[in-house]
Amino acid sequence: MSQDRLISEIREQPSVLDGLLRSGRSAVQALAEEVLRRQIAHVVIVARGTSDHSATYAKYQLGIAHGLSVSLAAPSITTLYDASLRLTPDTLVLGISQSGMSPDIVAVVAEARKQGVLTAALVNSTESRLAGVAEWVVPLGAGPEQSVAATKSYTAQLMALAMLSALLDQDSDRLAQLAAVPEAVRRALDLEEGIARRAERYRYMEHCAVISRGYNYPTALEIALKLKELTYTATTAYSAADFLHGPVAVVREGYPIAVVACQGRAWRSLQAFFGAMHERGAELITITDDEQLAQESAFGLFLPQTLPEWLSPIVAVIPGQLLAYHLARARGIDPEKPRGLAKVTETR
Amino acid sequence: MSQDRLISEIREQPSVLDGLLRSGRSAVQALAEEVLRRQIAHVVIVARGTSDHSATYAKYQLGIAHGLSVSLAAPSITTLYDASLRLTPDTLVLGISQSGMSPDIVAVVAEARKQGVLTAALVNSTESRLAGVAEWVVPLGAGPEQSVAATKSYTAQLMALAMLSALLDQDSDRLAQLAAVPEAVRRALDLEEGIARRAERYRYMEHCAVISRGYNYPTALEIALKLKELTYTATTAYSAADFLHGPVAVVREGYPIAVVACQGRAWRSLQAFFGAMHERGAELITITDDEQLAQESAFGLFLPQTLPEWLSPIVAVIPGQLLAYHLARARGIDPEKPRGLAKVTETR
Repeated sequence: MSQDRLISEIREQPSVLDGLLRSGRSAVQALAEEVLRRQIAHVVIVARGTSDHSATYAKYQLGIAHGLSVSLAAPSITTLYDASLRLTPDTLVLGISQSGMSPDIVAVVAEARKQGVLTAALVNSTESRLAGVAEWVVPLGAGPEQSVAATKSYTAQLMALAMLSALLDQDSDRLAQLAAVPEAVRRALDLEEGIARRAERYRYMEHCAVISRGYNYPTALEIALKLKELTYTATTAYSAADFLHGPVAVVREGYPIAVVACQGRAWRSLQAFFGAMHERGAELITITDDEQLAQESAFGLFLPQTLPEWLSPIVAVIPGQLLAYHLARARGIDPEKPRGLAKVTETR
Repeated sequence: MSQDRLISEIREQPSVLDGLLRSGRSAVQALAEEVLRRQIAHVVIVARGTSDHSATYAKYQLGIAHGLSVSLAAPSITTLYDASLRLTPDTLVLGISQSGMSPDIVAVVAEARKQGVLTAALVNSTESRLAGVAEWVVPLGAGPEQSVAATKSYTAQLMALAMLSALLDQDSDRLAQLAAVPEAVRRALDLEEGIARRAERYRYMEHCAVISRGYNYPTALEIALKLKELTYTATTAYSAADFLHGPVAVVREGYPIAVVACQGRAWRSLQAFFGAMHERGAELITITDDEQLAQESAFGLFLPQTLPEWLSPIVAVIPGQLLAYHLARARGIDPEKPRGLAKVTETR
């Protein structure tokens, strides 16, 4: 197999997550204490691209486990319209960014800090402007991410958010569950050979949908983005519920749908969704920790290790990253140089 | 031209908006007073499908004009995970729904009401469960919407939100601007003949992107949904900024991109986006109130009447509705019976 940077970064993920669990804990702990001390009830997250999907994970995790109301900022409210939200003192404004260099994200966090509310950044480059403007900084420690497509910085962001959640209520069970993640990611990476062999099946796929629900909705968003960036497939992600509110009309015999269905509360609804699409003759590419569902799929990507649902997104994205990578290669696309993309996109 | 229900509902929009401006004002005024009295700082909106795009409009409008922080609820936090947000007393929970029957939306609003925070509903069917659980109800008065694809209920929702904004600060200029909207919508409907003639050009289009930014980002989302529902085109909407953070990789010579670019603060950035895509040889379908941009497009949909930017989404969506309708017909799809869709989708 090839040894370019993207695949190396994908394969580095278990060790990045191991490292973050060890060396990131004190920074996350300090932020968690500040969140509790200031009695934070609202979280505004500022992010773009892949980091926006981490923000969506935070919406579920902080909402479900802590009752925190999370909103995703529209940076253009600040940058285009020169308006600023009247932030209440029980608000945390959290910037999430690999590079920490996107001017619009920096602007929103800087404005929040000026208003005196709690600001924090999850950032890979601690030398960045974002790390400079936020009061609290959690370094992701993923090491330089040189590929244009973000992979290890994404799973590191999810892990940092999961750590924040566990540390917010000092739940020793949940803290212990975190330790199992790197090994589960390692085992998911073992799917690579099968994916590399099978990717050609999708060589001429022009569009597809990626579906999940609940905790793995951000996984669907992220896999869709990887497929777009790396393989130029017109891919859209939906929650299963939203898909049934309209876009389902596009499904015809053979229509490719990737479903991310891990065990947990969203399971039953995703299983029903799978059944309905199966009946319509859709081509189902399924990322799942359920062996039977994997077997019933046109292409089943079976995750051998079941994690608690709240941690499953860190593992479930891995087969999607691998599929995007190997499909790019099957199409003769250089995954290092997606058409028209730069690593840092300076939107304002 | 045909006289089926969908096109009738599309054409009804000017009179629906006229009616809402007249008869909806007292309900909106009462809600605005309550928002001020309770010193609301946070708005949580619960919506799905088309109504979710109205929620996105509210995020911009209430954020820009009033500094309100708006978050879009993930209903599954309540319905799948049995969790509830700890809502602070300065929060409004607003359900937006045509039918008012979606169980998950009803559940989130009911839970908020139980917590004692301000709840309201923008709803077309005032006999609905949603109208029953919310403390304040703004009836949209759009009349029965029988087509599966929502059109007049969407523009009515936007109008109700715009009225709420203008009434929140009793701004007589902005109140006066509202009065110009129905006529601008009427003039946008005059584009129908040209659209009907030209729709065939896109008969074999399999996928496309719809792009805008700022106030018209929800317009892009809504037009993309209409194209998916009615024409089965795999369509994805993006803010121009997010598109440049990855998905732009899919653009090649002839790739169809619909751009919604109205005059205002987002204009410059959209004009630059248009230029960049033009250079790449994209097929540009442009909805704009700028004559030159319309002329430079492969298919320019020129809005003859320029509205203030905050009201432009009510008009800019119209050519998109018409295009989706006539493209469905050009493809021999019955716009009354999109594959696999029901008018009320009972997601839980």
